[in-house]
Amino acid sequence: MHSLEELQSIIQKKIDGFCRKNGEENILQPVNYILNLGGKRIRPLLTLLSASAFSDDIEDAIYPAIAIEVFHNFTLMHDDIMDNAPIRRGQPTVHEKWNRDVAILSGDAMLIQAYQLIIKTRSECIESIMETFNTTALEVCKGQQLDMDFQSRNDVTLEEYIEMIRLKTSVLLGGAVKIGAIVGNASAEDQEAIYDFAIALGLSFQLWDDYLDTFGDGSKTGKQVGGDILANKKTYIMIRAIELASAEQKATLNAQWNNENPIEKIDVVTSLFRSLQLDTLLKQQVNDYYQLALQRLDSMSIPSAKKESLRQLAQALHSREY
Amino acid sequence: MHSLEELQSIIQKKIDGFCRKNGEENILQPVNYILNLGGKRIRPLLTLLSASAFSDDIEDAIYPAIAIEVFHNFTLMHDDIMDNAPIRRGQPTVHEKWNRDVAILSGDAMLIQAYQLIIKTRSECIESIMETFNTTALEVCKGQQLDMDFQSRNDVTLEEYIEMIRLKTSVLLGGAVKIGAIVGNASAEDQEAIYDFAIALGLSFQLWDDYLDTFGDGSKTGKQVGGDILANKKTYIMIRAIELASAEQKATLNAQWNNENPIEKIDVVTSLFRSLQLDTLLKQQVNDYYQLALQRLDSMSIPSAKKESLRQLAQALHSREY
Repeated sequence: MHSLEELQSIIQKKIDGFCRKNGEENILQPVNYILNLGGKRIRPLLTLLSASAFSDDIEDAIYPAIAIEVFHNFTLMHDDIMDNAPIRRGQPTVHEKWNRDVAILSGDAMLIQAYQLIIKTRSECIESIMETFNTTALEVCKGQQLDMDFQSRNDVTLEEYIEMIRLKTSVLLGGAVKIGAIVGNASAEDQEAIYDFAIALGLSFQLWDDYLDTFGDGSKTGKQVGGDILANKKTYIMIRAIELASAEQKATLNAQWNNENPIEKIDVVTSLFRSLQLDTLLKQQVNDYYQLALQRLDSMSIPSAKKESLRQLAQALHSREY
Repeated sequence: MHSLEELQSIIQKKIDGFCRKNGEENILQPVNYILNLGGKRIRPLLTLLSASAFSDDIEDAIYPAIAIEVFHNFTLMHDDIMDNAPIRRGQPTVHEKWNRDVAILSGDAMLIQAYQLIIKTRSECIESIMETFNTTALEVCKGQQLDMDFQSRNDVTLEEYIEMIRLKTSVLLGGAVKIGAIVGNASAEDQEAIYDFAIALGLSFQLWDDYLDTFGDGSKTGKQVGGDILANKKTYIMIRAIELASAEQKATLNAQWNNENPIEKIDVVTSLFRSLQLDTLLKQQVNDYYQLALQRLDSMSIPSAKKESLRQLAQALHSREY
């Protein structure tokens, strides 16, 4: 078994090697740039943890793991164009630092590079890995499509919101562990169980993100608390608030929609959310998905010790304050 | 052996089936739209002709062939954004009909769909096909990058221009025939020969495109003759013209650069090109690449009759007037 730290070090070294090979070529400079902005590398870590749960040899899972991180960063590069985002992890986004066309084309190259990495594994696994990866990748695009569609809609249901974050966030965690399980020769049942584990973990993770954005401690998250409120984002909290609000509270929410005083807007809306006990409700929902994830992990046929690192990672994600 | 018409019919049916399966999903509507704008389907045809040159059974080549057509149309969707092109094959481009974000995201989905199709073949071919496809796809992106880089440069050499069109156009024809050859169990030598054939054919094809744009018959091409001249595009003709022009002729070219009278500009520049015999020179260059293509076709180890359809397609492309 490898420790989380060992696996993180393996991942960083492989990413460094990948960037070194990309060199200074025009089209690949933005690829290296975005990969070097940092990030928690959760997805490749999940692939390696999954592989090591089922097999002592994780060698064949390393490049597929890097492929998933490269794919994830490709989606960030293209999403940032669509979201007109100027900043990513404290640095200018690719389309800001270079331009729109560079961000499109280097993103395309990056997606192709993910496919170059994903097949660097045992030949007999390639077909199965490709099927999982393709399905996952297409679902992530559909998640982004839904997210964009929702911006112009006022009738998004909670169910639709959960489906959107499942596609946009969870399925890539699911794909990451499933690919690790394929390389590790897991049974079909265990592949399904670990996939479900990661889906539930992803939902818990994303909803906790929503929580921190509204109810978190800005000094710990490093982000402006209330960003989603200012952007009128229809997250879990807002959708539930509209469901639960009295006529008077709905009027308050409507009145705040165009309030140009950010401090007041955040203050009024957050208070309203708290009065509806949405902080408690959301925490409960986050915990429900977390418990579901652990249940699916427990259901896997392998010895409990083999699941320990996955459990640790899940817990670290669950109890994070940033 | 299948006739060209039979193979074209197989391709069209498979594309129709692919679009039907995509259905009405938001993100896939632009995929169906661009695939239904038509086109000569040369690339999938090359894959099937190549497979049928080496094997009587082309079944396993059909989906990879469609993958290449889907990939080609993905590049068109994204290139049209970068080129700000409003029209493609007489219809609005995807970013015009929908918007930029849709064209980015549906293009991404389309690239992933190409990968879904490329692995629908015999399992033992997948790794090799993937390697060829990935290398090719990345080269096509690099070709687009060079094309964009050249727009802001005035010192592009003929060698650089040929390298750009090799990457942007030829390598996908090369990849198309090589993948057909892999599925058809061709020897490594024959794979290389048919790849070289397609590269030379692609250069001949693209240079002939340049020829028709300047010296063609508009009533046959259906395009405005002189479009490249009006856009000040640094094609083979312009690069050679600058190399060969006298000081006086260079002054004329410079003076025309910003001429806002399109009829006069096309008239003066085309006359200058003709006076430098660039029409003859370019025709010679097109023919040289065509002959090179045929030589490489001849060098392949299979019976001559097996190459007949490939020869026919090459000839049809060579003698086209549009």
